[in-house]
Amino acid sequence: MQISLYDTTLRDGAQTEGISFSAEDKLRIAERLDAFGIHYIEGGFPGSNPKDREFFSRAAERDWQHARISAFGATRYKETRAADDENLRALIDCQTPTVTIVAKFSRFQAETVLETTPAENLAMIRDSIEHLKKAGREAIVDAEHYFDGLAHDRAYAEQCARVAADAGADWLVLCDTNGGSLPTTIREGTLAAARWTEVPLGIHTHDDLDLAEANALAGIEAGARQVQGTANGLGERCGNANLLSVIPTLQLKLGHECVEPEQLRQTAALARYVAELANVTLDPQTPFAGHSAFAHKAGYHGSGMSKHSDAYQHIDPALVGNDSRILISELSGRSSVVAKADSLGLGDATDAARALEEVKSLEERGFQFEGAEASFELLLRRLEGEYQAPFEFVDFLVLAETREGREMLSEAMVKIRVGEEIFHTAAEGNGPVSALDRAARKALERFFPELGSMQLADYKVRILNSSEATDAAVRVLVQSSDGEDEWGTVGSSSNIIEASWIALKDSYEYALLRARGTQSGRGAVS
Amino acid sequence: MQISLYDTTLRDGAQTEGISFSAEDKLRIAERLDAFGIHYIEGGFPGSNPKDREFFSRAAERDWQHARISAFGATRYKETRAADDENLRALIDCQTPTVTIVAKFSRFQAETVLETTPAENLAMIRDSIEHLKKAGREAIVDAEHYFDGLAHDRAYAEQCARVAADAGADWLVLCDTNGGSLPTTIREGTLAAARWTEVPLGIHTHDDLDLAEANALAGIEAGARQVQGTANGLGERCGNANLLSVIPTLQLKLGHECVEPEQLRQTAALARYVAELANVTLDPQTPFAGHSAFAHKAGYHGSGMSKHSDAYQHIDPALVGNDSRILISELSGRSSVVAKADSLGLGDATDAARALEEVKSLEERGFQFEGAEASFELLLRRLEGEYQAPFEFVDFLVLAETREGREMLSEAMVKIRVGEEIFHTAAEGNGPVSALDRAARKALERFFPELGSMQLADYKVRILNSSEATDAAVRVLVQSSDGEDEWGTVGSSSNIIEASWIALKDSYEYALLRARGTQSGRGAVS
Repeated sequence: MQISLYDTTLRDGAQTEGISFSAEDKLRIAERLDAFGIHYIEGGFPGSNPKDREFFSRAAERDWQHARISAFGATRYKETRAADDENLRALIDCQTPTVTIVAKFSRFQAETVLETTPAENLAMIRDSIEHLKKAGREAIVDAEHYFDGLAHDRAYAEQCARVAADAGADWLVLCDTNGGSLPTTIREGTLAAARWTEVPLGIHTHDDLDLAEANALAGIEAGARQVQGTANGLGERCGNANLLSVIPTLQLKLGHECVEPEQLRQTAALARYVAELANVTLDPQTPFAGHSAFAHKAGYHGSGMSKHSDAYQHIDPALVGNDSRILISELSGRSSVVAKADSLGLGDATDAARALEEVKSLEERGFQFEGAEASFELLLRRLEGEYQAPFEFVDFLVLAETREGREMLSEAMVKIRVGEEIFHTAAEGNGPVSALDRAARKALERFFPELGSMQLADYKVRILNSSEATDAAVRVLVQSSDGEDEWGTVGSSSNIIEASWIALKDSYEYALLRARGTQSGRGAVS
Repeated sequence: MQISLYDTTLRDGAQTEGISFSAEDKLRIAERLDAFGIHYIEGGFPGSNPKDREFFSRAAERDWQHARISAFGATRYKETRAADDENLRALIDCQTPTVTIVAKFSRFQAETVLETTPAENLAMIRDSIEHLKKAGREAIVDAEHYFDGLAHDRAYAEQCARVAADAGADWLVLCDTNGGSLPTTIREGTLAAARWTEVPLGIHTHDDLDLAEANALAGIEAGARQVQGTANGLGERCGNANLLSVIPTLQLKLGHECVEPEQLRQTAALARYVAELANVTLDPQTPFAGHSAFAHKAGYHGSGMSKHSDAYQHIDPALVGNDSRILISELSGRSSVVAKADSLGLGDATDAARALEEVKSLEERGFQFEGAEASFELLLRRLEGEYQAPFEFVDFLVLAETREGREMLSEAMVKIRVGEEIFHTAAEGNGPVSALDRAARKALERFFPELGSMQLADYKVRILNSSEATDAAVRVLVQSSDGEDEWGTVGSSSNIIEASWIALKDSYEYALLRARGTQSGRGAVS
């Protein structure tokens, strides 16, 4: 059966404690979800903040391959007219093909939280849906507190479902809002809704009992045709159902159609991408996508795996783009280094054993080459012997100061050598790293005007052992672009300026390699 | 129904990638599990390492309140006698009342991994159990690969179960070893085993499909009387069923008897304790026990919670020893700010509209008060009017430099005013922020020696709009501790030094408030 996939990473996921997506982050995640084959992408809550409105105005200018973008809001305010409701207007102004509104399907919640009458809540549901339909929108109705509402006043929940259907809802999504329901409850409630209405049903679950996925599956088993969730199970409190576990389970274990096999092979990459933009570490034990999901530690598991790959694995990890690993050491194996060198077209020139040693020694110091393929390619080239760096930095100084309450000032001085010539210059910046970048480029562009087209696209900092506080090692990832392609570089040090400096230097050096046409031209582009 | 609780944190949990327990860690965890009311504590694999043997010899000297300690191992080696088997001898030498042995209930696994005949595998099961029973041990049999074995060769799985029962097994624990089974499979397989044998059944599940808990519940529903799992779902690959979610669900949602209510109230504390000894951060989204499990971020959730505690919670968090929290964030409205001010005891003194305006303006500049409750409390106090800061920083200068290939050097100079007095000093550090912290504390401790007990526990950096590259705004979160409590502060700026500086300043200022006893004493401590 074809299952409709509805992602709310950008709305419910953005409600995760400690997570805050910029409009740019949201667009980048939406593009990846679209390529993965998600059918609906809920972009945010335009009524609640300007960042979400920016997302919708930029999303309206793009073509989406698979996904319809949806704006999320609530039914109209009590005792008003839908046409006068500012939040409904904000939803329609988003110009999305689909609008999702949350409506209370629980008499208790309507009376206690909305502080209104059961009848007025029904009117709010009806008016809001009719208003959206008149505006030509597909209307998805999130039946908030549906399962708790059933237990509290079954007849009222039924009335809500019938009103929503009569008003023209395109989907009725049954929500276990507080996450406290068991699969048996979900199954029974979904079957009931299917008796009351012919509107296609969806299921929206939370993980407060560690049952979000089981509940999503129970809903599908009982007849729901849409599943809602988030990448990596982000979301309010304990999070939502993790679509990146639900989808492979529906497809590989239950035989439902969700995405194409090539798309399914992007599961692990997508999980890691969203974690990166959310600036969290993906839990290595995450099903399907986690770094440990197919890792084998116990001696008898490792030995079993060497006899048959089914010994301690339930699927071939390649189906979801993951790898199995035997944990002899925590570090990379020789075969992964060889595979990477091959993919860069440097296989023949590479002394794999020496490269592996170098990688291990750098990883011990906090480097990591996932997402920093340009630094990895430079590492291999530097081991070739014939390689000559195009420039050398002799020294630099960075300072940041504030005097008598004036604005902070950051300045950098750099001295660079190219061949026999030395150039010494200085620049200001918004912060110490930006000052250093500007001074270095000022010096380099004197020798290499082609660097003018290169831009830094992204700068990320990760504290590696944050309990060491300000003495912790720091990893810096820099993403650069020449307008056509992007490349990533990495630096690590207990000094954030030095870590940034290493990544910036690699980035300039790789740009020069590219400009001279000696780079691999593939693989290095991430 | 009374459910038997079997914990394998110290064995399966110790197989988590990156986790290593000392014998002392294991004893401390076992004591807490015992106090919590766990019935069986699997201590380890005495055949595999000396650390586990040390655990068993020390465990034998203690009195346990509720728990029986169990030693874990496998059936005898093929084509030998049980009496000659070294691993079985090591199990009996542990002097535990209970021994758990893993036995293959899958013909495919016996042939492929054990490389033996189906008949010899049956003999290995029978001999090993009889040997343990002769030695006077309670014998728990982990039926490895039981569910996959059923699918592969049902008759053989049945034979294994009958042989184990005839040999005297006290418990037969059905294992979804590879974690790839669905609840329907677990239910059917458990019902089948119950038809074949009268030995009480247990259920042992893994989380590879994100269904470990659902599968454990399906086993119990189908007649299993024992549930196996680990604290926090530690374990090989994606981990085991999390007993600290399974137990509250069985007890609070399904009405089974597991532990006493006072013990259940230790759930969150136990989860945090095990994470601490495992040296991992407990995922804040962990059901029941996580820091975010009852935290409310969306404005309409915060406002709902202020009207009724059932609005967005499925249980009272006190039942499992957790708290609910309203998070201050850009998604929150006025009611969240008021609720937070009330929880800090500052409700009467707070002009909520002005505070909300201040919060929103700071959030636009990249501040975020989730996890920075101390900065939020300072914000409210500074709005009071009568508040006076205990010190003032006049100015500072930080530099980082490298000269002619020498190691990088970082130094900071600060000038501080307390009352009429000015003090000017300097320090070095591993990086610019650490130099600044050291110089500032050197200056402050001259006036406030009580700051000596304060330590920075954690330092996190988040690049907010990373596509602005090195001009991006940066958010710094600092966690500090005085040995008793911890508090979080935040700073934001396009200059990383300035952002760190704002967070550090708040942290010192809050430490002084605490030392003087004017802080709220609750709420601010995160």
